[in-house]
Amino acid sequence: MIQRLCVLGVGLIGGSLALALKRSGAVGEIVGYERDPLCRAKALSLGIIDRAESGLADALRGAEVVVLAVPLGAMEGLFQEMAPLLKPEMVVTDVGSVKDSVVTAARAALGARIVDFVPGHPLAGTEKSGPEAAFADLFYLHKVILTPLPENRPEAVETVRMMWHRVGAEVVEISSTYHDRVLAGVSHLPHVLAFALMDLLAKVGEPQDTLQFAAGGFRDFSRIASSDPTVWRDICLANREPLLALLEQFEAELHTLGEALRRGDGGKLVEIFARAKAARDIHYNA
Amino acid sequence: MIQRLCVLGVGLIGGSLALALKRSGAVGEIVGYERDPLCRAKALSLGIIDRAESGLADALRGAEVVVLAVPLGAMEGLFQEMAPLLKPEMVVTDVGSVKDSVVTAARAALGARIVDFVPGHPLAGTEKSGPEAAFADLFYLHKVILTPLPENRPEAVETVRMMWHRVGAEVVEISSTYHDRVLAGVSHLPHVLAFALMDLLAKVGEPQDTLQFAAGGFRDFSRIASSDPTVWRDICLANREPLLALLEQFEAELHTLGEALRRGDGGKLVEIFARAKAARDIHYNA
Repeated sequence: MIQRLCVLGVGLIGGSLALALKRSGAVGEIVGYERDPLCRAKALSLGIIDRAESGLADALRGAEVVVLAVPLGAMEGLFQEMAPLLKPEMVVTDVGSVKDSVVTAARAALGARIVDFVPGHPLAGTEKSGPEAAFADLFYLHKVILTPLPENRPEAVETVRMMWHRVGAEVVEISSTYHDRVLAGVSHLPHVLAFALMDLLAKVGEPQDTLQFAAGGFRDFSRIASSDPTVWRDICLANREPLLALLEQFEAELHTLGEALRRGDGGKLVEIFARAKAARDIHYNA
Repeated sequence: MIQRLCVLGVGLIGGSLALALKRSGAVGEIVGYERDPLCRAKALSLGIIDRAESGLADALRGAEVVVLAVPLGAMEGLFQEMAPLLKPEMVVTDVGSVKDSVVTAARAALGARIVDFVPGHPLAGTEKSGPEAAFADLFYLHKVILTPLPENRPEAVETVRMMWHRVGAEVVEISSTYHDRVLAGVSHLPHVLAFALMDLLAKVGEPQDTLQFAAGGFRDFSRIASSDPTVWRDICLANREPLLALLEQFEAELHTLGEALRRGDGGKLVEIFARAKAARDIHYNA
């Protein structure tokens, strides 16, 4: 049982976590810290949080667990601002989609209090954002990645792990560097590709004319291009090196495929397509 | 009412059309032509067709409407084989995902009988294939594109249009060249991108390890990479020129995006992402 939980940023992820914890009876009071007055009002009126604070000191006071659920670009500043306000054994975690950059910022700002910062990343979300998009089932049966630090107090890791268990998530522990490399492949690059394709289609024709001929496959493929542009700017910049490395490999792959198509090499196309299908089917259609 | 309909190729599309027409009461007998004995047996046992034929002459005999639902690579040979067997006013249509190449093959093979060949393309499908994947609702509320030819008898076009209306589809008429250009963008290139990404991920890590960290966005994005490799080889080769042109533009777009990322130009990233999101939201979240 967490007597008081403080959520910094009450959007889709922070809001959903608050709703889910509240429903599970795993927390007493939930305090929301949110700078946007409209979001504060919405989060209160939707019953996502019990109390809204616009000042960080008021928000953190007496909290056992603090969850940073702000965009990645706001993390560093928030760590610096909260560092002098943290009390001993106040457990801090985050939900950022990139982990090495968050760990670096936390180490720089928190000093000795790093022992109680447990980096996290729930593998759940939708293309929507804001408190009105939050729902209590968002994390149910989804994975949550924790990338605990060598410095962490085991009790802090356990507190964060239990918090996610209580909302029905499966907790997995890996290193932050491995996390960032894998997520570049299964999340960040796909988003970049979906954004790039939609932008191209908007340039070569009127989307209203073109998209009427799109079927279900395209709707699903392009759904992530509806994601929040600033959130994804932050993610791409925060995970720049792994993403750039993979993007280069992807460009080479696409070049190979284009060359095969140019010379009418059906055998090469089938080879690539079949390997791709096999890789996907292993996981999704096994 | 169509007294006798002949479906050439009883896979996902041909099989689903047969099931839907049968349910709607719009046809008397449905004859399936299928070279694969296993598919023939399945299509019969699943009640998709009333009669299965392995010989083309037997299959076509007495048919009012003939639907070519074979992979694009098999179209040309089938047109040549069926040309001497076609009777006056036997209406022929197809379901191929590329239209200019099909029209070229049909014109070359059918001679004067081209008047009754109405090219078509239902914008529906799944990543599955074969008669066991067929279901009667596949086309319900989906678009079907017809690209009628200047030579077409109006009655032939009307027969094909009515057939699709009877299974709940919305029929749209555009030119075959416009069709191929638009479909390159909303279908063929997305498939190529999904295949390329899955192949790359299979090369840089073990898919079993990597994909466990994929969330719903990736599952949807990559679903089309489970599509049939030979079907998509045929589509890519048949629509080679429009697809290559768009692929080149996409590579330039991706290069621009990569350069912005490399120099940490968050403004440029947001500009691209926001334009992409706006283009998609116009159609899907308006």
